[in-house]
Amino acid sequence: MSLPKDFAFTDYQPYDFANRRHIGPSPKEMEAMLKVIGYPSLDALIDDTVPKSIRQTKPLEWGAPMTEREALDKLRETANRNKKLVSLIGQGYYGTITPPVIQRNILENPAWYTAYTPYQPEISQGRLEALINYQTMVCDLTGLDVANASLLDEATAAAEAMAMAQRVAKSKATAFFVDENCHPQTIALLKTRSEPLGWTIVVGDPFTDLDPVDVFGAIFQYPGTYGHVRDFTGLIARLHQTGAIAVVAADPLALALLKSPGDMDADIAIGCTQRFGVPVGYGGPHAAYMAVKDAYKRSMPGRLVGVSIDARGNRAYRLSLQTREQHIRREKATSNICTAQVLLAVMASMYAVFHGPQGLKAIAQSVHQKTVRLAKGLEKLGYTVEPDVFFDTITVHVGKLQGIILKTAVAEEVNLRKIGDDRIGISLDERSRPVTLEAVWRAFGGDFEVAEFEPDYRLPEDLLRTSEYLTHPIFHMNRAESEMVRYIRRLSDRDLALDRAMIPLGSCTMKLNATAEMLPITWPEFSEIHPFVPADQAQGYRHLIEDLSQKLCDITGYDALSMQPNSGAQGEYAGLLTIRAYHLANGDTHRDVCLIPTSAHGTNPASAQMAGMKVVVVKVSENGDIDMGDFRAKAEQYAENLSCCMITYPSTHGVFEENVREVCEIVHKHGGQVYMDGANMNAMVGLARPGDIGGDVSHLNLHKTFCIPHGGGGPGMGPIGVKAHLAPHLPGHPDIPGLGGTGAVSAAPFGSASILPISWSYCLMMGGEGLTQATKVAILNANYIAARLKGAYDVLYKSAKGRVAHECIIDTRPLAESAGVTVDDVAKRLIDSGFHAPTMSWPVAGTLMIEPTESETKAEIDRFCDAMLAIREEARAIEEGRMDPVNNPLKNAPHTVEDLVGEWDRPYSREQACYPPGAFRVDKYWSPVNRVDNVYGDRNLVCSCPPLEDYAEAAE
Amino acid sequence: MSLPKDFAFTDYQPYDFANRRHIGPSPKEMEAMLKVIGYPSLDALIDDTVPKSIRQTKPLEWGAPMTEREALDKLRETANRNKKLVSLIGQGYYGTITPPVIQRNILENPAWYTAYTPYQPEISQGRLEALINYQTMVCDLTGLDVANASLLDEATAAAEAMAMAQRVAKSKATAFFVDENCHPQTIALLKTRSEPLGWTIVVGDPFTDLDPVDVFGAIFQYPGTYGHVRDFTGLIARLHQTGAIAVVAADPLALALLKSPGDMDADIAIGCTQRFGVPVGYGGPHAAYMAVKDAYKRSMPGRLVGVSIDARGNRAYRLSLQTREQHIRREKATSNICTAQVLLAVMASMYAVFHGPQGLKAIAQSVHQKTVRLAKGLEKLGYTVEPDVFFDTITVHVGKLQGIILKTAVAEEVNLRKIGDDRIGISLDERSRPVTLEAVWRAFGGDFEVAEFEPDYRLPEDLLRTSEYLTHPIFHMNRAESEMVRYIRRLSDRDLALDRAMIPLGSCTMKLNATAEMLPITWPEFSEIHPFVPADQAQGYRHLIEDLSQKLCDITGYDALSMQPNSGAQGEYAGLLTIRAYHLANGDTHRDVCLIPTSAHGTNPASAQMAGMKVVVVKVSENGDIDMGDFRAKAEQYAENLSCCMITYPSTHGVFEENVREVCEIVHKHGGQVYMDGANMNAMVGLARPGDIGGDVSHLNLHKTFCIPHGGGGPGMGPIGVKAHLAPHLPGHPDIPGLGGTGAVSAAPFGSASILPISWSYCLMMGGEGLTQATKVAILNANYIAARLKGAYDVLYKSAKGRVAHECIIDTRPLAESAGVTVDDVAKRLIDSGFHAPTMSWPVAGTLMIEPTESETKAEIDRFCDAMLAIREEARAIEEGRMDPVNNPLKNAPHTVEDLVGEWDRPYSREQACYPPGAFRVDKYWSPVNRVDNVYGDRNLVCSCPPLEDYAEAAE
Repeated sequence: MSLPKDFAFTDYQPYDFANRRHIGPSPKEMEAMLKVIGYPSLDALIDDTVPKSIRQTKPLEWGAPMTEREALDKLRETANRNKKLVSLIGQGYYGTITPPVIQRNILENPAWYTAYTPYQPEISQGRLEALINYQTMVCDLTGLDVANASLLDEATAAAEAMAMAQRVAKSKATAFFVDENCHPQTIALLKTRSEPLGWTIVVGDPFTDLDPVDVFGAIFQYPGTYGHVRDFTGLIARLHQTGAIAVVAADPLALALLKSPGDMDADIAIGCTQRFGVPVGYGGPHAAYMAVKDAYKRSMPGRLVGVSIDARGNRAYRLSLQTREQHIRREKATSNICTAQVLLAVMASMYAVFHGPQGLKAIAQSVHQKTVRLAKGLEKLGYTVEPDVFFDTITVHVGKLQGIILKTAVAEEVNLRKIGDDRIGISLDERSRPVTLEAVWRAFGGDFEVAEFEPDYRLPEDLLRTSEYLTHPIFHMNRAESEMVRYIRRLSDRDLALDRAMIPLGSCTMKLNATAEMLPITWPEFSEIHPFVPADQAQGYRHLIEDLSQKLCDITGYDALSMQPNSGAQGEYAGLLTIRAYHLANGDTHRDVCLIPTSAHGTNPASAQMAGMKVVVVKVSENGDIDMGDFRAKAEQYAENLSCCMITYPSTHGVFEENVREVCEIVHKHGGQVYMDGANMNAMVGLARPGDIGGDVSHLNLHKTFCIPHGGGGPGMGPIGVKAHLAPHLPGHPDIPGLGGTGAVSAAPFGSASILPISWSYCLMMGGEGLTQATKVAILNANYIAARLKGAYDVLYKSAKGRVAHECIIDTRPLAESAGVTVDDVAKRLIDSGFHAPTMSWPVAGTLMIEPTESETKAEIDRFCDAMLAIREEARAIEEGRMDPVNNPLKNAPHTVEDLVGEWDRPYSREQACYPPGAFRVDKYWSPVNRVDNVYGDRNLVCSCPPLEDYAEAAE
Repeated sequence: MSLPKDFAFTDYQPYDFANRRHIGPSPKEMEAMLKVIGYPSLDALIDDTVPKSIRQTKPLEWGAPMTEREALDKLRETANRNKKLVSLIGQGYYGTITPPVIQRNILENPAWYTAYTPYQPEISQGRLEALINYQTMVCDLTGLDVANASLLDEATAAAEAMAMAQRVAKSKATAFFVDENCHPQTIALLKTRSEPLGWTIVVGDPFTDLDPVDVFGAIFQYPGTYGHVRDFTGLIARLHQTGAIAVVAADPLALALLKSPGDMDADIAIGCTQRFGVPVGYGGPHAAYMAVKDAYKRSMPGRLVGVSIDARGNRAYRLSLQTREQHIRREKATSNICTAQVLLAVMASMYAVFHGPQGLKAIAQSVHQKTVRLAKGLEKLGYTVEPDVFFDTITVHVGKLQGIILKTAVAEEVNLRKIGDDRIGISLDERSRPVTLEAVWRAFGGDFEVAEFEPDYRLPEDLLRTSEYLTHPIFHMNRAESEMVRYIRRLSDRDLALDRAMIPLGSCTMKLNATAEMLPITWPEFSEIHPFVPADQAQGYRHLIEDLSQKLCDITGYDALSMQPNSGAQGEYAGLLTIRAYHLANGDTHRDVCLIPTSAHGTNPASAQMAGMKVVVVKVSENGDIDMGDFRAKAEQYAENLSCCMITYPSTHGVFEENVREVCEIVHKHGGQVYMDGANMNAMVGLARPGDIGGDVSHLNLHKTFCIPHGGGGPGMGPIGVKAHLAPHLPGHPDIPGLGGTGAVSAAPFGSASILPISWSYCLMMGGEGLTQATKVAILNANYIAARLKGAYDVLYKSAKGRVAHECIIDTRPLAESAGVTVDDVAKRLIDSGFHAPTMSWPVAGTLMIEPTESETKAEIDRFCDAMLAIREEARAIEEGRMDPVNNPLKNAPHTVEDLVGEWDRPYSREQACYPPGAFRVDKYWSPVNRVDNVYGDRNLVCSCPPLEDYAEAAE
């Protein structure tokens, strides 16, 4: 029977074709949008937007895209290639149990994982409260005064601490002392970081090798990587005498039992909160912490959440001291960090809320007692166990038996740590069970039962903790699961994330984080793999990394890729280090000048400085493009010492510059390398390749272009792609010989490996064609917004043909002049319409940068444009004297329920206040606070939980 | 080293001890609560509450409770004992793909799964909208006028249709004709259901064996269980001529291509929406559907969502016609259904929203084309394939090869359907892949590739669908994943579920649904097992069912248990059928009288009627207890024909009656059996056992006492436990020989098996001691509420010692007299405080029944009591003339944002309106609508999506 006409297969793609679900506008909607812009077809628009000279000639081609189900099957098969043994390797990564209530309601909840960094405090009160809980927890455990909202990993935190120590130390020495008991990856990173900055690293036993006069600071590990628990109080006092800074890298779980770094008078404490409920995940992401003495708080890198008030005087949280190192000192900066690991910090903080001090102490005690039992058994077998006192880690002298014991352990499904050629390290954790101990004993040739050994204590008596911690009521709430669920829900409801509305940020690509991409993240076969397991146990990860790297090389036109950098800024830094290593290898030790246009992201000059380069600033012409005359002149002027240039493409002004190839050629002509910032890769994938245009190295923000969610301000991933000549100089790692020729830049060899399945499945499900279509639609959406806002707002930068790339900067400065309406007013008024504001005042003060991404539908974009146009009309009413210049909906935004409940004495209606165009009626998002007072917060810096009486509500 | 005193292990239990997390009040809180009630200890309270005479003598003892992690490991191991093959067995259960966006945001989202039945419409607008989408979808696909909000499974839906046909048919015949092409389990259920009611079932070929004069109705399967697609139009016309009713059981996916039952003039259509994205789950839960002609809508069983208006005249959804069959006709009822499968219906409706008509059609076409290809291959191998035209199912004549082909198929990891001794059935679905077809061919001895066969059509030309469906805009929204996520979130935000506040319902035990219990539900090893796989492929399920049954027997004191009934009402019915079968087996065919106290749940008499019993009502004395005089008299009077009595213990009045043993003894003395309703089992677990007190059979609401979440109004599970003498008479099933001696009561042999892991892990993690403690704390919490509300409200029923059981009925009738404040006003005012109202007007009109469960903390209970006490004070203000008797916060509740936005002309403040005691300030829950007009809704019955213009917002 032949098919009746009506029954013919339609163009409709099977339901689970990710491309169709990922890309917002339907074909019909696209048609309508193109009409508004004035183009007959998407390709015509793209041809007019992306210069012919840079278009890639060969389309991305990886065969048919996978359906969601096929991709999930592929991920499952890949996950199953990882072997899930019990890893007692320690070295900074420990087994932990994520409470299911936290897993489901935070890690697997789009309300948390799709949120953006809390730059707009009014719509971020939930995660800001969770982060202030985190900071309070870190302060309490470390005994220090101020903690930040997390750093990338323990090793980078150590490097940040070193750089900070150098900035604040009174000592003018140029060496930094490193405890030989620090984790190897920490030592490696300190070496990487110090070398370009000209600081010397001295590694040794602090009790014998440290002369405080020689150093501007020192770092001690507590407990040490081999298990030692030692008191650094005396050493710290000696350091202070010479004006040097003392850093203690401390395990937060150990601090539940041990004297705090603060009690030893340390200046800075760093460490990692991974074992507070965050899975090891083959190396990350996790939340590292840093806490400092009050005196140093303004020099602390990273984000800092503080308490302020809103326009009604009610408590409100916000990011404090937002102008950080890289903004203030730019090319003099010794830190480029501009991210936190928010999602993981939130999890760790909830773990502390869940367990409370009593629970944490009980877990720490239990871990310790298990370790004592383990040691007793090994001693009974005749092994020498080091040290005498410890917390959770012991080192066993095994001589020539090392190989056979490690192998037997693996047969028992346990991974132990190989130390040198004759020792074995073992770290226990809250997951360790009696059967685990018994398996370890068997690997050492013993046949015991746990019950044979008394659970004694071997903690150093003079280091037992006496100070309290987690005394705040939030850590003493009734932790019945019902209450945990509700607390987590209440916090998330205060925030506006992608699960409720578009987030049209120019500075970040906030596209769909598809559920199918997120599901594998919490599979144990991905989440429970220790980063230092033997390679044959991580074949799934290795395959994934290899295939994703290949695809990213195809996309960028590069030849090799390093997955190590775990943030965009880290990627920049690693890329520049690679360039530096290349020049050094060529004997060009003098090549240290880096050309950077003034329009560059603040991290660019900071990264260059950290890579030992001298930044030379290049002008930008009025239309936003690089000033070619100045560029040519500077390149020539510094030709001899030219190391590289750093450019962003398309530019941070949202335009495909026609002259990009020329820029690259100039640099190459003078012996320099081109660093092409990949932040705007979402405008290029499938259309143009940095490697073809002239780039030598780029980082890719997998959390922008490749679907890793922002998690409320982290995690991110910033792998770098390089041309073949740079490949030998990519980052290496002490635990993976042969990985790369340069020093390590992250604690884990493949960065935050456990979130790579997201980017990989995105590529698998989109296919080359789908990715290219996504890019085109991202450009369409941006040009559609520019077209719809025409007449109301000027688009600041356009190409010669009047097109923008995937984002556009609209100028709100005229409103300031004509109506006193600031960019802030516009941003806050958008909250009334249920939107997160676009990026404010970057790269141009007083403007908004809008990037809709390909994932937003026409309806959602129209809703946003309606809101923007209504704001313009409100400003017009002020201009024309129809509205009060001070007491108006723009100045009073965002409006809250509190405004409605009280007396209404404003010259505009409640209706107008709360339901501007764009706002949903029944489903309106209500800002939990009125406009937050930024100045008050910075003047009255409070960065831990407010006192008891303020917590009446939370305690309810 | 010995342990310093400060370091001693505290009483704090390790974090993941479920008992501690499941039970709300902390030990300290319990102390404070006992003080308020006036008891020195929990045990003293219990001793005064639960009569000594009924206390169980031996504690529950299953060894140590498991931690969450241990339980999850156990569940994983059990899941892995199920073998996940590709099942092409069909017979009502098909492979389907749950879109990940629906899985994560609905099935795995507590905002959806912890919600209660939408009896309080104001706080249920989200799920009500999803259900009206469901009803619209069913109406459209079936071509009928009104659909209900789902039924339990296809077979019970067929039985409900038969009973409804009997009620509405003009024909007075007593036989019902059943198409032999109906699924075997459907035929089995129709037999079970008809027999006690005295109706005859005639099974046969409708085209040859059906004489319309003989029957009050007939049911046809479309497509038939063996694949036939036939036109019943002519038969239906003939049925109508004699006043008989035509029922068509139709596959909703097939209806995307085929002429609808409505177009054949069928009166009723039933079927199952399982293949719309709901996993097979070893038999359930799924949402069955029923749709009827407009003329019959008021006779349709089940819940019906309708459109009404709220106090401001805005659109609002609600349950229409809440007084159903069992309420109206009670002991004359032929339906006892009082539940829907809401969570699954919501999923199915979202699947339709996700795919739209075009997508559904494409899926149906693809399934059909694959089936044609499969048939061609089999024909090429020389097999006879039946029928000539089909949708997704074919029957292959294989003669003596049956065994070897089935076995080979299993070796190819495919399950086929055994039909008789010489045929094999195959049903394809949206999961079937080319490799699946090739595996099937290999099992039949063929070696083909899919590409060898053209994807033709073999649909009956005269049955091709010409009518449109899913024309409403909701099924045409842009289905980009971002929009799906946001639509699902917007709906869930409108609702108040357990993830935001306690739901203190007396009629349902709304306890914690712990995340650890919920996680395994979506593991494929549980969710993707077809109910009719060979037993060796379901060893995990079988073990789980066996162990859970044993535990439930331990808890209840029974000897055997049937997991088949998939709701509480089904359990009642099955229990009574078991009693009936027992009497019949003893030759006591005359025993048909069932004694039921007037205080019984409405389903009790309906179930009795359905089991062929005559209901005799027994009086209840003033204090709520059974009137012993009357009971004794009635038992004696009907001694000869006494079948059983039905009692609830503790009583529906929330009291442990002292005389329960006596009641049982009286019944037994007269040869009757005792049905003890298990609805209030949460007050007994570990303290008393129905089987010890005198019960012969009880059903257990696993969705009350054993943690299965309510899913917004389903799924539930109602297994029955029985004493040994009744065990041979438990329900059987055509597909599991030997399962039981009586007829099947559910489509699947073990009911909704896929949610049993929840109850099992609850038992594993609580242990016997934990469960007992939970019961005690449930009683404590209820008595604490009674104590706190003392003076403000009277508790209607108490034991002689002044105690209530796990719930209490408080009397709000005095407020009606003194202040005109109705129970409705109290319930709606509680919404302003952020609470779901207690059960209203049941079992006593004008009262509230409150059951806090053990999971609520003292803080949450206090918040609730504060709200209740404030309501009493508001009523007092009316009594004392300080507040207007009509225009006051109680009458105007719930207050919405709409109230605040407009002009405020009320004699009380906005503050008082919106922030009564109990309400959160920042995190307040806002009702999305004002009070819903029930009368308007029933008068203007609209049960499908409102017309286009109303959808402006949803379409945005």
